[in-house]
Amino acid sequence: MVTANYNEKGEHFHLNKLETGTLMDFTYKGAKMKGVLVSRSEGNLNIKLLSGYNLLVPVNSISDIKAVETIAQHEGTEEKNLILEQGPKKVAFIGTGGTIASRVDYITGAVKPVLNPGFLRESVSNLSKFTLDISLLEAVLSENITPEDWILFARTVKDKLSKNQGAVILHGTDTMSYTASALSFMFQSLSGPLVLIGSQRSSDRPSSDAFLNLEAGLEFASSNFGEVGIAMHQNTSDNAVALHRGVRARKMHSSRRDAFRTIGGHPMGKYENGSVTISPDARALSDETVLLDKLETSVALVYFHPGLTADDFAAITERKRATVIMGTGLGHTGTRLYSVIKGIVERGDHVLMTTQCLFGGVNMNVYSTGRELLKLGVTPLSNMLPEVAMIKAMHVLANYPEEEFSKIMHSNLRGEIVDREFLWEAK
Amino acid sequence: MVTANYNEKGEHFHLNKLETGTLMDFTYKGAKMKGVLVSRSEGNLNIKLLSGYNLLVPVNSISDIKAVETIAQHEGTEEKNLILEQGPKKVAFIGTGGTIASRVDYITGAVKPVLNPGFLRESVSNLSKFTLDISLLEAVLSENITPEDWILFARTVKDKLSKNQGAVILHGTDTMSYTASALSFMFQSLSGPLVLIGSQRSSDRPSSDAFLNLEAGLEFASSNFGEVGIAMHQNTSDNAVALHRGVRARKMHSSRRDAFRTIGGHPMGKYENGSVTISPDARALSDETVLLDKLETSVALVYFHPGLTADDFAAITERKRATVIMGTGLGHTGTRLYSVIKGIVERGDHVLMTTQCLFGGVNMNVYSTGRELLKLGVTPLSNMLPEVAMIKAMHVLANYPEEEFSKIMHSNLRGEIVDREFLWEAK
Repeated sequence: MVTANYNEKGEHFHLNKLETGTLMDFTYKGAKMKGVLVSRSEGNLNIKLLSGYNLLVPVNSISDIKAVETIAQHEGTEEKNLILEQGPKKVAFIGTGGTIASRVDYITGAVKPVLNPGFLRESVSNLSKFTLDISLLEAVLSENITPEDWILFARTVKDKLSKNQGAVILHGTDTMSYTASALSFMFQSLSGPLVLIGSQRSSDRPSSDAFLNLEAGLEFASSNFGEVGIAMHQNTSDNAVALHRGVRARKMHSSRRDAFRTIGGHPMGKYENGSVTISPDARALSDETVLLDKLETSVALVYFHPGLTADDFAAITERKRATVIMGTGLGHTGTRLYSVIKGIVERGDHVLMTTQCLFGGVNMNVYSTGRELLKLGVTPLSNMLPEVAMIKAMHVLANYPEEEFSKIMHSNLRGEIVDREFLWEAK
Repeated sequence: MVTANYNEKGEHFHLNKLETGTLMDFTYKGAKMKGVLVSRSEGNLNIKLLSGYNLLVPVNSISDIKAVETIAQHEGTEEKNLILEQGPKKVAFIGTGGTIASRVDYITGAVKPVLNPGFLRESVSNLSKFTLDISLLEAVLSENITPEDWILFARTVKDKLSKNQGAVILHGTDTMSYTASALSFMFQSLSGPLVLIGSQRSSDRPSSDAFLNLEAGLEFASSNFGEVGIAMHQNTSDNAVALHRGVRARKMHSSRRDAFRTIGGHPMGKYENGSVTISPDARALSDETVLLDKLETSVALVYFHPGLTADDFAAITERKRATVIMGTGLGHTGTRLYSVIKGIVERGDHVLMTTQCLFGGVNMNVYSTGRELLKLGVTPLSNMLPEVAMIKAMHVLANYPEEEFSKIMHSNLRGEIVDREFLWEAK
């Protein structure tokens, strides 16, 4: 059980036992080592070292055994809230799951989501500046997060910001940019920065990006901007963290530590050599955190391609209040979809256009296809990212009058539209 | 009518008329100009200059009028085949439509697809080296291209390669990478290079990328590699053209001239300062062109996201022989789709996994989600691009025994899987 009185050395964890799954310090052939007990058999111990290597040794060949913690302990059984008081800056620290809060399951070899607040003390170099208001909302792999979770996260953040100067959400990277977009739209204003952090390598691996992202996340969350950002490695070196605007970020690589990119612009902040810089174009903090927490989930995201038939498109969009098309090029679909699009608009639902190119935006006045689609009532969304457009539609449908839908989709609520395309990718 | 005896100065075009839509040379205030007659009213002419500006002038203020051609002339009425004999290198030149073969419709201001072979003589600087075997297959905006068109293109290429040393296809850029992938799989071997070219700016604009892409396309098509490539500007300057492997290219910007990128690697060729270089890893030419021209079009491409429900997924995949999921991160979906995935596999159809990150690949052994999906029978496709995976499935379902499907999807038929991830983007 993790408590506010957490013993600094973790000694309350099963000190006198050697359960499978125990992380322990020990001495072997005169060297101090750390590893997890995977199994015992015939007087031997199989220990997974933190380096990743396995050590198969006789029980009596190791000494000075000290259990640091039992890995399995943290899954679902720990206390959900604690205050970790180390320094003056109060930051809410909200666990939702993901690699950043995970450890390898040494039994199966899998990485499983486990929040481990105790680990912060050992690993986060700037922790002495902060008092963390820790809450474990859930421990879910981010691919399982749905719009319902976004509402839970948003309400928790609103509550926590009333007592802290900013908030950090630990989140799996798979859908982190979706959550960041959702929270961006749901918060009309923020009294503190809201920073999502994740990691691409689990925190028990020496190559983990978790430590620096945690450190940077706390610094960003106690700095001065009123937006939702994603803080992840800026490059493959372990020396700088970029702060990406939630509505412009996208996971652009499945495994690299610098997987996240600000699409069509520069990151809005940076953490390097212990100091934070925030772009002057970041929104200012507000006195009050204003949350619109309703979402209309009946929104489709359709990837247009040469094999997509009118029947396919009709099936996907049949019961949807809005459909975001990831069109080709400047915002096109084949004419074969026109009759279905016409039907959607005529029944009072919405068709919105973005580009599957991801970089650049739609411009539906250049080619005849674009103009035909505009005539059918398609709403072009400039350079808004497709996923962001989908989430914005969920927000706008649920919180604004129906007759204002198109106007608000066109307007730039949270920086989701960029005035100029700067770069292919921002460094 | 465009014929093999096309007059070099285009003088057979309505020399004595001034129809609306006529491109003409003329003198105004002592300066020689070129523009298209948009309209006449009350003794004035409204002329769209090639610079893009409009000139509204009295009829009698311009002199030395010489009609170069009538724009509208080329739409649908011209001859479909001709040999343009200029030099020794025989290259097939196949028009399918798109911006590269288009001109602005000066009546509506729209860019409309118009193949104009005569324009080659005026615009392509290296034309004297080539004899072009020109055929206009269709004039279609590429967003309207479907798998049926790919079969038409492939059969034409096979025929043309028996009489030429290579082939160039003029194609709209919107779906050019889809067509390139399809042709890559359909041709088991090629007796000549097959090069798709397009342009992002129509050829009547001074900033057009069409001229250099045409020039490079001909050079690539008469060089020495047996693959399908896309030749487009390598950067925003008008000085180099990259040759992207068909199965690794993607349109990554909606408007830039260097919109196409080789994802996860370097381009396989380059044209710069009049000379071609081809990577040593490009496949060699074959004695024979072998075409497998069947495609099974019942393949879905699904973009997984937090709002996608099991019902949505079931509706999209209901009648499909194969479903390619653009999963999150290393190849994940929410557990809410598992029962539908199970059902698809149990009925004998296929579920294939790619990543919506585009860069990097799937690795379904890292997280529990990935392993669960593998257990359900999902086929992981390494770093194959999602669109390419969809087209490969169309090809494999139609041309190989059912029991070999997974094995062939895993194998690297045309370089669609890259051994190493090099770069975010290749220069």
